[in-house]
Amino acid sequence: METYSSKEEYINDLEKRGKLPEGFRTSVLPLTFFPFERPVEKPLPMRMALLMLDRATPVFGAVFTRNKCPGAPVIVGRERLSSEKIRGVLINNKIANVCTDTGVEDSRLLLEKLADVTGCRADEFFPSSTGIIGWKLPVKDMEKNIPQLVAGLSGGSAVNFAKGIMTTDSFPKLRSAEVGEGRIVAVAKGAGMIEPNMATMLSYIMTDIDIDRETIRNILKRVVEKTYNCISVDSDQSTSDTVVIMSSCMKKGVPEKEFESALYDVCSALAQDIVRNAEGCGHVIKVSVEGAPDYSTARSVGKAIINSPLVTTAVFGNDPNVGRLLSAVGDYAGNNDMELDKDRITISLGGEVVFENGAFRLDQEKELRLSEYLKAGTLDSEHKEFPAHDRCVDVAVRLGGNGGGKATVYGTDLSYGYVRENADYRS
Amino acid sequence: METYSSKEEYINDLEKRGKLPEGFRTSVLPLTFFPFERPVEKPLPMRMALLMLDRATPVFGAVFTRNKCPGAPVIVGRERLSSEKIRGVLINNKIANVCTDTGVEDSRLLLEKLADVTGCRADEFFPSSTGIIGWKLPVKDMEKNIPQLVAGLSGGSAVNFAKGIMTTDSFPKLRSAEVGEGRIVAVAKGAGMIEPNMATMLSYIMTDIDIDRETIRNILKRVVEKTYNCISVDSDQSTSDTVVIMSSCMKKGVPEKEFESALYDVCSALAQDIVRNAEGCGHVIKVSVEGAPDYSTARSVGKAIINSPLVTTAVFGNDPNVGRLLSAVGDYAGNNDMELDKDRITISLGGEVVFENGAFRLDQEKELRLSEYLKAGTLDSEHKEFPAHDRCVDVAVRLGGNGGGKATVYGTDLSYGYVRENADYRS
Repeated sequence: METYSSKEEYINDLEKRGKLPEGFRTSVLPLTFFPFERPVEKPLPMRMALLMLDRATPVFGAVFTRNKCPGAPVIVGRERLSSEKIRGVLINNKIANVCTDTGVEDSRLLLEKLADVTGCRADEFFPSSTGIIGWKLPVKDMEKNIPQLVAGLSGGSAVNFAKGIMTTDSFPKLRSAEVGEGRIVAVAKGAGMIEPNMATMLSYIMTDIDIDRETIRNILKRVVEKTYNCISVDSDQSTSDTVVIMSSCMKKGVPEKEFESALYDVCSALAQDIVRNAEGCGHVIKVSVEGAPDYSTARSVGKAIINSPLVTTAVFGNDPNVGRLLSAVGDYAGNNDMELDKDRITISLGGEVVFENGAFRLDQEKELRLSEYLKAGTLDSEHKEFPAHDRCVDVAVRLGGNGGGKATVYGTDLSYGYVRENADYRS
Repeated sequence: METYSSKEEYINDLEKRGKLPEGFRTSVLPLTFFPFERPVEKPLPMRMALLMLDRATPVFGAVFTRNKCPGAPVIVGRERLSSEKIRGVLINNKIANVCTDTGVEDSRLLLEKLADVTGCRADEFFPSSTGIIGWKLPVKDMEKNIPQLVAGLSGGSAVNFAKGIMTTDSFPKLRSAEVGEGRIVAVAKGAGMIEPNMATMLSYIMTDIDIDRETIRNILKRVVEKTYNCISVDSDQSTSDTVVIMSSCMKKGVPEKEFESALYDVCSALAQDIVRNAEGCGHVIKVSVEGAPDYSTARSVGKAIINSPLVTTAVFGNDPNVGRLLSAVGDYAGNNDMELDKDRITISLGGEVVFENGAFRLDQEKELRLSEYLKAGTLDSEHKEFPAHDRCVDVAVRLGGNGGGKATVYGTDLSYGYVRENADYRS
């Protein structure tokens, strides 16, 4: 992962990596609206964004949240998986369009309007909404703006689109890779309410590599499982998490492995970007777990650590309170009937062994070193604007079992900033 | 639950309810020590506390954490369950004595010293430690103080003992009930790291009612399940959670149901005290769930809500962001393959329906009313010293299933205060 010394440097780098694959255009449009359609308070800002292929493509796929109260866009999006072809995605922030009386209808209405304006079919578009759960979309205001949104479509760079889909994200997130003669370009938004168990937040992946529908869908599932599903900001899985992939197929195909490997790199980097830019994030915590019965258990143990408020507040305070690491592992094992032999567990923090052969290995010097280590991993206020460094708080857990299950997960500390952003997210 | 207008009034009331049952005495002693046995920084304060029966009793029971890396006192305590008789409990705060090379040995050593001084057997005492995980007990310092601790034993009030076992608790917690001719008196400590899945924190229950060992153990298990196991402060289940019950059997027995009902009242009130006095608590959140397949699922759904950082930060900010309630339910259902028909769910906040028949029921006036409702439930700074009021943020979830599963759980908001206390708990 690259690091940067200024926002300009970061944005310049994004511009370099953000060149759209052949056959894609994007557009972003800001608008304002009144919630409940009544102008009693100041209007709220919203952004609509549009991602379009020059020609409809049969090569696309998507994965969605497992939350059982999904948003209308997820409901409509699942139907779209059986569409013959797809032309693009219509996105808005500020309101997630979840469980309102007219939610699905509202999504369809907007897509019909979009179809009218573009001369396509409504079932060729995915809808995508993120933001407040429970409020209705300001459909009339949004509809009115669709012609202008479509008129603004342009090729070239995806950076403006990456900025357009941001909510509480403080910097845009975009990753890309060259594959054969073509490219993979992916953008994502998501800063809180992230514990993907399947997908996470909103992410749109564009490519021009020729590939078939079945293959790209299988690859997407495998890659999401090992990337977006390995991060957690606050253990909440949203009603709206969505990852969409689309190919214009305008460039020569490459071997499946090569494509999968490039897609993995892009999504893995993007998932880490999301964590690094999470609401109130003061440290990125990387937890590697080995010696679990299987991959899924290894990942769950890792998540038990990064989702423990006691672990994450201690990291926020640069307090190497490593007892909480073991406690989180023991808590998970106890609640999930996992075999655990504490005499075989090894836990390291920042490369230093803190627990081994059934007991903690601590002394005053080590505690001081570890505290300095945590301080050095702090994301300063400059991280609000760009990723200034890529340091993680590195936790390694060897469970000592014979199973080959291992996984690496990424999370954040729990800070005042997280509480602040989420206590008044809507104001 | 009573409410108070000053600390004095609260302590006076504790004194009234805190009369020890017949046959019990307590003692508390402060000391200081150097961690790692090396005087390089200022010494840390610790308190030892002792609870003793005048005569050893066969009538006792205990439940412990399910965490698979339990502290040495839990390991020793589990052995004690087969002791013929018990004489008391030796308690310390500041260091939890978990997974050190000499942990179990240290606990035994202290009990042997206590046996020497009191002329009892070491296996007649439960050890109990709470505090930092990973550090060694300052055994020499503690041993030295045991004679003075024993010399300080006195009957009468349990209030000093309730104060003595506090850690980050900001007020002592003690509940009691008259039963027949005798009493039940229970004290508890615990302010963070509380998600009992079995027991929670440290709680000691004393009674003088005549009852048999088998009966009191069965009653304890049932009562803990519906009281301590229905609260959660931060979803972490500690390595040391312990509830001990002991009877001196000096007063006439009562019907089993009467005893169980009184014990339930005492433990239920104490569990709520723990939540109300939780680290950084700004609101107590009560979640009632109905229409689940069974009790256990109802409780899990309730806990999914009170453990959601997005719900609890919104409550902290007095933001009626009710979408997060539904999202938490949907997230739980999705991750646990629970059947959920969102058209049958009803969710209320403060008695107002916010979700019904598949959609949110919100308008601007209702949002304003709910925000005022949340503000009115705030625990002000005076709550640091005593429980000034007993208001809860009342969330009711009817899942609409045919099962009779229902449960009520209590949790707290997620505040700056929680982060602060846990980011530098050890300093």
